[in-house]
Formats: sequence, C-alpha cells, structure tokens
Amino acid sequence: MPAPAVTSIRRALLSVSDKTGLIELGRRLEAAGVTLLSTGGSAKALREAGIAVTDVSDVTGFPEIMDGRVKTLHPKVHGGLLGRRGTDDAVMAELGIAPIDLLVLNLYPFEATVAKPDCTLEDAIENIDIGGPAMLRSAAKNWNDVGVLTSPDQYAEALAEIEQHGGLSRATRFKLAVTAFNRVANYGGAISDFLSGLKLDDAHEAITGHDAFPAQVNSRFEKVMDLRYGENPHQSAAFYRDLCPAPGTLATFEQLQGKELSFNNIADADAAWECVRSFHKPACVIVKHANPCGVAVSLDGVGKAYDLAYQTDPTSAFGGIIAFNRVLDGATAAAIVARQFVEVVLAPGYEPAALEAFKKKGNVRVLVIPPPPGADLEHGGLATAHPGMNSKRVGSGLLLQSADTGMVTAADLKVVTKLAPTPSQIDDLIFAWKVAKYVKSNAIVYAKNRQTIGIGAGQMSRVYSAKIAGIKAADEKLEVRGSVMASDAFFPFRDGIDAAAEAGISAVIQPGGSMRDAETIAAADEHGMAMVFTGMRHFRH
Amino acid sequence: MPAPAVTSIRRALLSVSDKTGLIELGRRLEAAGVTLLSTGGSAKALREAGIAVTDVSDVTGFPEIMDGRVKTLHPKVHGGLLGRRGTDDAVMAELGIAPIDLLVLNLYPFEATVAKPDCTLEDAIENIDIGGPAMLRSAAKNWNDVGVLTSPDQYAEALAEIEQHGGLSRATRFKLAVTAFNRVANYGGAISDFLSGLKLDDAHEAITGHDAFPAQVNSRFEKVMDLRYGENPHQSAAFYRDLCPAPGTLATFEQLQGKELSFNNIADADAAWECVRSFHKPACVIVKHANPCGVAVSLDGVGKAYDLAYQTDPTSAFGGIIAFNRVLDGATAAAIVARQFVEVVLAPGYEPAALEAFKKKGNVRVLVIPPPPGADLEHGGLATAHPGMNSKRVGSGLLLQSADTGMVTAADLKVVTKLAPTPSQIDDLIFAWKVAKYVKSNAIVYAKNRQTIGIGAGQMSRVYSAKIAGIKAADEKLEVRGSVMASDAFFPFRDGIDAAAEAGISAVIQPGGSMRDAETIAAADEHGMAMVFTGMRHFRH
Repeated sequence: MPAPAVTSIRRALLSVSDKTGLIELGRRLEAAGVTLLSTGGSAKALREAGIAVTDVSDVTGFPEIMDGRVKTLHPKVHGGLLGRRGTDDAVMAELGIAPIDLLVLNLYPFEATVAKPDCTLEDAIENIDIGGPAMLRSAAKNWNDVGVLTSPDQYAEALAEIEQHGGLSRATRFKLAVTAFNRVANYGGAISDFLSGLKLDDAHEAITGHDAFPAQVNSRFEKVMDLRYGENPHQSAAFYRDLCPAPGTLATFEQLQGKELSFNNIADADAAWECVRSFHKPACVIVKHANPCGVAVSLDGVGKAYDLAYQTDPTSAFGGIIAFNRVLDGATAAAIVARQFVEVVLAPGYEPAALEAFKKKGNVRVLVIPPPPGADLEHGGLATAHPGMNSKRVGSGLLLQSADTGMVTAADLKVVTKLAPTPSQIDDLIFAWKVAKYVKSNAIVYAKNRQTIGIGAGQMSRVYSAKIAGIKAADEKLEVRGSVMASDAFFPFRDGIDAAAEAGISAVIQPGGSMRDAETIAAADEHGMAMVFTGMRHFRH
Repeated sequence: MPAPAVTSIRRALLSVSDKTGLIELGRRLEAAGVTLLSTGGSAKALREAGIAVTDVSDVTGFPEIMDGRVKTLHPKVHGGLLGRRGTDDAVMAELGIAPIDLLVLNLYPFEATVAKPDCTLEDAIENIDIGGPAMLRSAAKNWNDVGVLTSPDQYAEALAEIEQHGGLSRATRFKLAVTAFNRVANYGGAISDFLSGLKLDDAHEAITGHDAFPAQVNSRFEKVMDLRYGENPHQSAAFYRDLCPAPGTLATFEQLQGKELSFNNIADADAAWECVRSFHKPACVIVKHANPCGVAVSLDGVGKAYDLAYQTDPTSAFGGIIAFNRVLDGATAAAIVARQFVEVVLAPGYEPAALEAFKKKGNVRVLVIPPPPGADLEHGGLATAHPGMNSKRVGSGLLLQSADTGMVTAADLKVVTKLAPTPSQIDDLIFAWKVAKYVKSNAIVYAKNRQTIGIGAGQMSRVYSAKIAGIKAADEKLEVRGSVMASDAFFPFRDGIDAAAEAGISAVIQPGGSMRDAETIAAADEHGMAMVFTGMRHFRH
C-alpha cells in the first residue's frame, strides 16, 4: 500500500550519542505536540531542560538490564517502529504497542573507540551497539510510516517540515531511510574491518597487532561529484572519496574557478600532486597522460621552478596539469596563462594576484589543496600525510598494497664506483630519483641543476626508456653533458650505462640488486662515471 | 573477565534461510543434549524430522506478529544471547531469561532478492531482515560465551568440537564471531548499495532505474592470498577478489604450477588476459610492465600466434606474461619453455602435453581461467563476461567508471580518405585497434598480417609514441612498409601522419574528432594512405 504523502508525527524516540541540537529538537517537537520517548543520557538531558520525556523502560515494562546491553530490543519498541499503519493497527492495539513515528538516533562512532591507542579487545567489543542499529534498521525499513534522523545536521530541515506540514513527506522519509541504511552499513563495515584485522595473543585475550590484510576488506566512499564521462567519452564515471580523507591529499581539494573537472584531470592531478609534495624546496611538476613531463626545483621560488619544468618538454606541457608545493604568486600565475594552455593548476594556496591572473582564462581549473595540519609551507613540509594503502582493480580482483612512501636521503646512498658523486651531483641524483618514483615504469630520468632534462617513461624494456630520455633532451636542445640519470629499477645489463655515458651522463642513481651489478659498475668505472645504489626500487605502473 | 576456554552448549537457537545440513545439525545437537529453539520454517523442518524443538514465541511469551516482522526482537532472546555468564546470572534468573549458547542463523541473501528483474521497491524493503542481523550481532558481541554459525559449511567442524569437548573453544568462538560480523557488514552493504542507487518515480512508489553512481558506494572483498610484497619490495600487499567475481575474469584463476604469484605478475596477467580475450580467432598476447609488447592472431592456431607475438620485441618478451584465448597445446608450451624466460602463462585450458612441458620449468606460473558459462572456445568467444565497473584509487579518492567495453567492428569504420582500405587492411586495422586499446596512452600500434610490428606506449605526446613504434620495428628488423597504424586517440596535428607515411604505413585507424581533422585527412590523401575513423577513443592510463 502506498504511504501517505505526509505522515503525522505523534510519538518520537530520541536516543543520541551526539547531543548537538538535542534540546532544541526536543523543545520544538514538544511544541509541535509530539510525545517524546527516550533512554539514558538523552532522557536525562531533555529532562534537565524541562522537556517531558517517557523512559523506554516504562514503555516496554521491562527494565534496562546488563549494563544497558538490553534496553530497546523489545517488541513494544520494534513493533512501534515496524508496525504498518493501516495493516497492523489491530494487533498493535491488542498488544498495547503504540506507534513510534520518528526515530532520532545516532551511534557513537565505533571507529573512534578503536582508534584510541589503549583500546582493549574488551573495550572494542563492549562498544558495539546492538540496539541502536536494530532500531535504525526497523525505522528505515518502515519508511512508509516512520521518519529516521541519524545526524544533527538533519534536524533543521526535518523540524521545518514537521512544523509546516505536521509531518514528513514521502520523499524526505525515503531519503532519510537511505541515509540510515548507509549509516548502518558503515557501522557494520567499521566493525568488520577492525575485527577481521585483529591479531590476538594465544589466549585470545589481548590485542597484539593489526593485520593490514585481513580475510575481508570493506571500503565505503561518498560521492564528491558526477563526472561528464570516464577515461573515455563512452564510459560513465563519478569521483568519490573516503569517508575520512587523509588531510593534504587530492581528495580534499576545493575548486576555486574553471570548467568542470574530468576523469583524466583528476587522475593526472593526483599524480602531479603526489610528486610535487615529495619536494621540500619550491617545486613545480607538470603532468600529462599520468606522467611528469617536466619537473624542477628552484631556490628562487616556484616561478623559476615553473620556467625550468616547462622547458623540459613544451609540447607535452601544452594542456598539462601543473602543481606547486608553495602558495602561488601572481607573477607565476600570469606567466602560465600567458604562455600555455593549461588544464588544471594545483597549489596549497594562492595569492590574490594569482587568482586575479587566472580569471583572465576562466576555463582553467584552479584547485587549492589545504595543507595538512602542522605543515610548514615556508619550508616545504607538505609531504606529511599519506593515505596508508592504495589499490589497483584487476578485473573482479583487487590488488591492495601499502602506499609507496619509501624515500632515500643522501645518507642512504651507497657509492659503488671508484668515483664518488660531488655534493651538487648528489643533489641532482636525489632530485632525479624523486622524479623517477612518479614516472611510469620503466622510468629513466635525466636531470641537471634540479631540472629534468629528459624523461623516458612507460617502456617495456629499460634501454628504450633511456633512449627516449636522450631523444627528448636532444629534441628540446637541452644539454645532457654533465647531467645525472635515475633509473627506477636496476639495470639488467651494462648497455644502459654505456648508452648513458655516450649521451654525456656523469652520474647514475639506481637501486642495484641485479645479478650483473658487477658488470654495470665496471661499465660506469670505465666511463669515469659516479654511480650510487639506493637499495630501494620504485616501480609504478 | 576472560571467557572459559570451552563453553558448554546447553541451548541453541536455529533459524536458517538455507536449510542445507539443518536436519543433521539438529539431530546431532539433540544427541549432544542441547535444547533446540527455533522459528518458522526451520522449526517445521526439524519437527518433521522428529527432532524436538521449542518455538521462540513460547520462550518470549509474545506472539509472532506483523507477518513475521517482529518475532525475535525480544529481551528473552537478546538477553539470552547477550547475557554475560557469571556477571548477569542473577538478573537473567530473576527475569526468566535462559541463556542461549549457540546461534545458528543465516540470512536470505538480499542481493538475490533485488537481482530478480521484477523486484519492486516493496519486495526489496519487505525482504530486509531486521531480527536476523540483530541476533547475529548479539551472539557475536557475546562471543565470550556464545557461538554463532552463519553458514552450513561451518557445521561439521563445530559439531565435531561440540561432540568431542562439549562446546566450542575460545579460538573457534572468536573466529565465528568475526565471520558473523563480516556477514552482517555484507548484508548492510548490499542494502546500502541497492537503496543508494535507486531511482524512483515522483511519487516514490515505483523503481524507474538504478544509478551506477549513488551518493555512497561500498565494496567488500575477500582475500585470495597474501603476496610476498607489493609493487616494490618495501610495500606489503595481498590479493583480494569480489565476493561474486565475474566469470571468465582473472580473479577466478586457478594456479596449476609454479612459484607464488607476485603483485606485478597479477597486474600484468590481468592486462594480458583482458587483451587476449578481446580476440575471437586464436591469439597470443605478451605483456611486460603492464603493456602488450607483442600481440598476434593466427588462423594456424595459438602456436603460430605465439611465434609472431614473440617476434615483435624479444627483449621485452623475456620475463613476460603470455596469455592465450584457446586451450594450450603441448608443442606451443614446449616452444615457450625452450625459447624464453616466462613469468606467467594464462589460458582457458591446457592439453595434458602442455602441462607436461611446463613441468620441465617448475617455476613457471601456469594459470587456468575457466571460460565463462556459454563461452564457445572453438570459436573464440571468451569475451562474454566483464566486470561492469572499474576504479582507480587517487590518494584518498576513488575514480569510479564503467569498464571500457566499447569496441568497433568493420561496419562502424568511417573512411575519410580518397583511398579506402582493402579487406586485408581492414582486418589489420581492427586488429591494431584492439591492441591499441590495451596499450597505455598515448598508444601507437603498427601491425601487419595480424601481427604487431611496433608498439609505442605511454608517452606524454603522441608523436613520440609514433617515433618509438618506428624505432622498435627497425631495431627488430620488422618491415614497416605496408603496415597499418592505430592511434588510441586522435592526431592533434598532421605530423603524426607525415611521420607514419615516411615509415611506410599504408593505412591508419584513429578516433578522429580533432579540430584539425581536415589537415590530417589531407596529409593522408597526399601520401596516398587510407584512413578510417572509429568515433571512439581508448585512453588507458
């Protein structure tokens, strides 16, 4: 049977963990002639505010027992929520079950309980609410007749509707029911995540650790925006984010101007942002087709860094995504719009003059990504927060892995050649290594004075990536002689070193670890090159 | 208080949707001296088998009402499940709540209800079980004292433990509780997925459609295996799959021999498999670093196809992933192990002689992916099932899109040049186009006689991908003259066509759609080339 367009609300049950807005809600419901039922802390708060409430235990005729484990799991509550008005009226009357027309209930977040460092297994288990989700589900199932509020930010709209129409409309009730079912799903998912990943001692009493890869993983995302289409126009798409996105990551962006973001914009913006925030000094990263096509760091600021990054590959920079790790100034913004077509600009902040400059090209998408708390923008500390895990969808499978947060410093480098790199070469080697981490494998990066000179990306054999880096440098008339070279994985043969030497490369950074390292080292020594091993690989596919 | 190592089981509640094994379970529990409570259909089935059961309504003293909406939501049930033995004994005795030590309950899968084509909103809502999940959660929360079985495949082990020890061990109870919480999470997630995505008519009565991109998306994966490490050795990883993987996709693989699969093996295997199953005639795809490095189709069978695919780029094929769309024969398997180092072989099946041949190289990972139901292997019909959606993780965000299942046929091609392609060129154009779809963008594929001649992958500007395809063909001494060229997206300028003509390319396939199409068409006409537009782009990043 179709439900009435508006159901009148005569009796409401209020049981909330978050007391925000509770008193005003109670007062206005009371004024609207609604009888209020409540439990525990909510009842106490309402009473102290002078609002009349009936205890649920008076409704059930059953005491609250087992330290609150059982209080609302009773047919007088669930019958009141689940009873179909018009169908179940007789049985409700016979058994003394009064309808409950509105449920106001929010759950203490289980995530917060288990996030406490001293949370024991007993604490976690004791904090699993049984009655709350059951009531949410009963009320939401019976949305035909019942309204359900799960969050204080829903109160104002619901109250306005109740005060104006005496109840909630069918559309509102459905929307609220879906939100309640989502909330229950999230709550259940959080419990499953936590328990599935628990490591316990042999007695199954104490928590000894957490398994990042439990037997089941759940994920829950909320939609940020629909996208016009996906990676290609015949695919449909939307952008979602974690319920709690990590601060400082792309998903926390705010768009200040420009056209709607596309699927590929967002994917490329993420690559650019992750790369640029790996640098501490002023840096600029230009990305095209998921690869950096120009990267530079400059102590003279991001304007100079942009100039240098652009020079690496002006053809690819056309229509690129440009990211900065500093507040962007007006002169640099003006230089960008004057010089090139740009799809997206990203920065942790903008000077007013920069925003003014972008207004001249209204289509340019300008995104600000608020720096994470504690970030020291002046000194480049953007690289403080990372999502812990990333994943790759493969057909009906999911490859889940810890994010590649590894990075070496100068102190970690192992010099393997007779010649050691100079301090300035070490600077360039670390710079090239950071860039190589964000170039699709096989990745080869030529760099000099903290500027990319040639980037060889995405090849099936390493020697072709090296060739491409050389060809691109030559095509842009950039001087390879004296540059350094980074390779994201080891060289399987000496041919890569030989080719680099011929191009004029003076120092090499690579993980090492090949069966033929000795051969590769000998090649570098023959050519009078310096080579360092990182012991760490950075495949990125 | 720590729970006893083994809890004795005196009273069990059985309420199952899936009746598999119910009678034997009931009989053996009865024989073990356990008192059985039950509801509805389960009670009826047990009674008909001559097993004594008490109705839950006799326990609660409350009738089953509202067509079963309210039957177990009662303190005598939940108190019996939630009561802490030793702590709550007095209140349980006082209120006449008898402990329930074992809950056997499975839920009718909500997914199955809503998968029915004629499922109405009312059907869906009516099928949301409130009491079942509440009991599962009560029992699982009280795992210290209570066991909970959620699936018939848990019965045998639990019965053996009960018969041997009189109850369930602490370790078993915890494991069962986690499974129950996972089940509840999955049930809640399925409801959230369905309702979040519903489109209703204006009256909110009838379902008018489903939104693939609802306000919230949930996903749930079960672990297939831990992996030694992730994309790099300093990352940890595991492989998961959908609770219901799409038939014929990589996630349904069975490993017949070989070393443990690595993260990169699985990622590359997926790329190889998706590419090879896009062909109907016998095909071989060799993948390295997520890109096809050699692809061929041969009417002479997969052995010949392998030979041709290998020739494209023997250097990259070393250590590659090789996929076939036919049952693999012994001669081809022998040829592979004799000729090259191979990481993974994939096929929908293997002749015994092929498995015999692989045994000589015991490290080679041999995977069989069962063809989807209805697949006609003889005629290459592997491309029948696809997961509907794919996703890309970007920091704390998720790009969700419908899978790229688009593909053109010869009939869709629009000839834009004065010269039309010959039938044999059309064959090669379609072949090259299918390969280009699986090559990372920007993708350029040269092909002749259904063999790849040069593959230019993953470049930030299209002209470099074209250059690389040419360089690779020349390096392998493959004749470009008379080959066709596929480009995954349009040529922004005529330079790509000019370069192709110079290399000897005779026909081109590309989406078209550039502002400068006229210029590109004029270039092709000048060079006496045939060119066709697909109207469909295949970016893949």
